Amino acid sequence: MNYSRRIKKLQSNLKRRKLDALLLSQPENRHYLTGYRGGDHGIGETSGVLIIPSSGPIYLLTDFRYQLQAKKDVPWATVLIYKKGLPKLLRELLPDLKVKNLGFESHYTLCSFAEELRLILGKKGVSLTPTSGFVEKMRLIKDEDEIDLIRASVRLNEEVFQEIVPTISKKQCELEVALAIESLMRRKGAESVSFNSIVASGKNGALPHAVPGNSQIKPNKSLTIDMGLILQSYCSDMTRNFVPGRAGKKYINLHRLVRKAQLAGMAAVRAGIKGKDVDKKARTIIADAGYGSYFGHGLGHGVGLAVHEAPRLSPLSNKKLKAGMIVTVEPGIYIPGWGGIRLENMLVVREEGYENLNKDTTWLDI
Amino acid sequence: MNYSRRIKKLQSNLKRRKLDALLLSQPENRHYLTGYRGGDHGIGETSGVLIIPSSGPIYLLTDFRYQLQAKKDVPWATVLIYKKGLPKLLRELLPDLKVKNLGFESHYTLCSFAEELRLILGKKGVSLTPTSGFVEKMRLIKDEDEIDLIRASVRLNEEVFQEIVPTISKKQCELEVALAIESLMRRKGAESVSFNSIVASGKNGALPHAVPGNSQIKPNKSLTIDMGLILQSYCSDMTRNFVPGRAGKKYINLHRLVRKAQLAGMAAVRAGIKGKDVDKKARTIIADAGYGSYFGHGLGHGVGLAVHEAPRLSPLSNKKLKAGMIVTVEPGIYIPGWGGIRLENMLVVREEGYENLNKDTTWLDI
Repeated sequence: MNYSRRIKKLQSNLKRRKLDALLLSQPENRHYLTGYRGGDHGIGETSGVLIIPSSGPIYLLTDFRYQLQAKKDVPWATVLIYKKGLPKLLRELLPDLKVKNLGFESHYTLCSFAEELRLILGKKGVSLTPTSGFVEKMRLIKDEDEIDLIRASVRLNEEVFQEIVPTISKKQCELEVALAIESLMRRKGAESVSFNSIVASGKNGALPHAVPGNSQIKPNKSLTIDMGLILQSYCSDMTRNFVPGRAGKKYINLHRLVRKAQLAGMAAVRAGIKGKDVDKKARTIIADAGYGSYFGHGLGHGVGLAVHEAPRLSPLSNKKLKAGMIVTVEPGIYIPGWGGIRLENMLVVREEGYENLNKDTTWLDI
Repeated sequence: MNYSRRIKKLQSNLKRRKLDALLLSQPENRHYLTGYRGGDHGIGETSGVLIIPSSGPIYLLTDFRYQLQAKKDVPWATVLIYKKGLPKLLRELLPDLKVKNLGFESHYTLCSFAEELRLILGKKGVSLTPTSGFVEKMRLIKDEDEIDLIRASVRLNEEVFQEIVPTISKKQCELEVALAIESLMRRKGAESVSFNSIVASGKNGALPHAVPGNSQIKPNKSLTIDMGLILQSYCSDMTRNFVPGRAGKKYINLHRLVRKAQLAGMAAVRAGIKGKDVDKKARTIIADAGYGSYFGHGLGHGVGLAVHEAPRLSPLSNKKLKAGMIVTVEPGIYIPGWGGIRLENMLVVREEGYENLNKDTTWLDI
């Protein structure tokens, strides 16, 4: 990846906003700009932050535990280790760098931490300015190198799915299927899952975010599998729904309805259309069939270094899609007491339409 | 768990602080007060928040995806679903509840979200007050019901470890050992890992937070295994270090040194001692042997619903331990280019000393 080009672009944005530097803490943004692979324990326990001055070389600030990883991943940055906490290191570093106006990511900074920084840095004449989306905006449009990585992630995810499906037997419970999926992902080289796999049998399918449990796989009950992995830092995300045995009439009708909605949504995807208009194409089909109230989530979301990122396809998304964005198209119907059906593909938005990254067609057209 | 007692205690604290209600978003706090098991996708994508008025029944606000889970887990709360986002629902709900002064968790609220709330709620005459640690303070001291659950989590974690150790062969790589551990955890009933298992062979042990990779297990190289699981929502965390074959002299000496430091740290644990004084007992032993600069992290941390929580045992911890707290004691020596050794147990702080929750003694005294 061309990190130096990305950093230069960010730096020119910082200059335009009259910021002397940006304190960057969001993990995917950090990775996008440097390739650093340190893993955070949630927002409260970072494996490091970047200081990006509006010109010149950048700094990676981390603690003892990550110093080897930081130096290995980002040998071209100055790695500084904080022993008495990040605020105290910033208090020393920023005046040296002549930073008076420090931007920070308000969408990934805790109120309590911002307050602590304001107190400590204020004494050194450094003021804090909330910013939002500097790097996210850059990440929205994927370059072809990134699309290649996402394509590889999608392909591996499908490979795992296709190897697992024939092994699913009625002796297994949801959790065993999920474990088999996740083990195979990692054996095949995935760094990790991109989210905990959903394996939901029968009625459990009515929970869009069901947690796999001890429910036995039943031959005549539907099975929702929603799975994704991270390969070379890029995420994939796919949902399939099928019946391991003989599907009933209601299932077949609803499955066809969801698939019809998915195809309508996909057909609408191209540069220039608003997210909400793509959502509407799919939603109308489900609503017209009388199931509108059973489709309670948005039609799709962006995928990249994060498995859920911008843009959104939902009734609230007023923004227009652009070429190079990645979106999922995943309509669903969830009926409490009966079950649920969701079908999800990942698409690249192109000028004149879309590229469907998913080649798997298991049970799509039944 | 006695949720109603916990909520009443919190409500009396809210009254004392003259808050009409608390907006509670931190996932473990939410679970501590209600048992709700919805899973968040990071801080930016919550599976629900609580509104705790200073008296009367509480509200669980979530979106469509989690409504069944919410009603199932917390049938005694009023579950409200937001369709147009949380801020808009709060704008309607809070005036109905006559809330003028709303507290929020500043240590688990993003600056951007607080700003959005301030704008939207300000128009309705609701002001926002940052608060910190209301529920964390309650969670610090575990009651015996919680200690029983933590004990069970530790026991299951040890059971998994002890079953895996004899199966480790030189044919495996770190990642395969990690996968075997994590699969066995879930097969034995764990909800999930409490953190990604660390399996670090040879030189990789020099990274305290090593990510298991393709390095082959070598019979004469040391192996660090740091693992933990979540059982009935409570975490465990244990580290062992051993050599699958014949250990060298340097290894044996350093292992004995780390164990000596661990025992000294453990012996210091009792109600009334400061965290930094426990840390010092262990640190001095390593420093006196000339390895002080190779032990760069704190001696330990609290464990409960979160795998890393208060209290901390570190040179910076001025707070006194209290009976009913849980702490890890985990000194380590990390030598770049050679490897590392860390030994970790979990202890309950008691009035007159401690209870060691770990019964496993694999390679502890060599």
